[in-house]
Amino acid sequence: MIDAYHSKHIQVIIDAKRGDIGKTSLAYAKNIFDFYGADAITVAPYMGSDSVEPFIEYCKKGKGVYILARTSNKGAIDIQDLKIDGIPVYMKTSAKIIDWSKDSGVGAVVGATYPKELEAISKLFVASKKEIPLLIPGVGSQGGSAKDVVDALRKTGNDLSIHRINSSSGIIYAYQKYGTDDYAGAAVKAIKELNKEIDFKIL
Amino acid sequence: MIDAYHSKHIQVIIDAKRGDIGKTSLAYAKNIFDFYGADAITVAPYMGSDSVEPFIEYCKKGKGVYILARTSNKGAIDIQDLKIDGIPVYMKTSAKIIDWSKDSGVGAVVGATYPKELEAISKLFVASKKEIPLLIPGVGSQGGSAKDVVDALRKTGNDLSIHRINSSSGIIYAYQKYGTDDYAGAAVKAIKELNKEIDFKIL
Repeated sequence: MIDAYHSKHIQVIIDAKRGDIGKTSLAYAKNIFDFYGADAITVAPYMGSDSVEPFIEYCKKGKGVYILARTSNKGAIDIQDLKIDGIPVYMKTSAKIIDWSKDSGVGAVVGATYPKELEAISKLFVASKKEIPLLIPGVGSQGGSAKDVVDALRKTGNDLSIHRINSSSGIIYAYQKYGTDDYAGAAVKAIKELNKEIDFKIL
Repeated sequence: MIDAYHSKHIQVIIDAKRGDIGKTSLAYAKNIFDFYGADAITVAPYMGSDSVEPFIEYCKKGKGVYILARTSNKGAIDIQDLKIDGIPVYMKTSAKIIDWSKDSGVGAVVGATYPKELEAISKLFVASKKEIPLLIPGVGSQGGSAKDVVDALRKTGNDLSIHRINSSSGIIYAYQKYGTDDYAGAAVKAIKELNKEIDFKIL
């Protein structure tokens, strides 16, 4: 399956949100990168350094690891917005991501649905002088806008070329929006519309 | 595979540590409970309420959901021990678990390797008057002791019969400890030793 994408020079990110004790994270990393041959994975930070390190080790081999910082869903506020001396957990996680980023390839998941939080995290990453690529879901069906995302990145002087704005449900369920059974056609239409929205701002 | 366990009246907990936006968590829940037929799952709390609710819905059907509160690994301190006005994230997560527990079946993962944290969480759960079963990993190869676990539960007046002390690596890798190729024999020996340690304290 992934080979088919690679033959078209399309990178594959497995949005698995894994994270476990070191031994188990290593097994997950082997599965995702060695067995499936994916290019990148998303990882959950709640269990801390030894749960993310086995994935990060693969950055030496050119793989990518996007660690959840501020997610795009409503429940994100429950844990991620708790404040430690005024600093929310998602900023503490982002600071950890900076620590964990040694080789290139360590990035962060930051939802498009919360542009202010995205801006704060982008500012922190830019100040760190490390290249932390962002995976930005939530555009499309979750309600985030590509315009707000690009504005937040540009405002903080972030290099627009290293990040990925991601729409999943907005594309795979596009047939529902367009009221058609032509799944592929609806997906292509949704992709073109989103790309137009992003390009308009970047180019 | 799971049918084989059920035919022996053994419950199966899938330690999957899943947690995603609602739609995806629902798909994971269907996979774990409907497709595999597992009895319980472990869930990561970082993404909050809408990420855990699709799993919790299955408690109405008699399934169990153990949400990570304070994990047994070293990196647990990175996020879980951050303090909000003196209260660590793992206690905030535990308070959320109390909120999320409506039907019975919503439990918490609390590592055996940190008995003080276990005691604090156990105290909170007992005070809530809700029945929150604990899944307690980290005994055995990770260095936790069944004695410390039982002491912490007893000290806080917790009902010992509803919790599960779990050893995974200590059992599946027991052949390494005993220096043998008899995997099954070594596992059985390790199980008997651990049960003896737990029974001694409970009975």
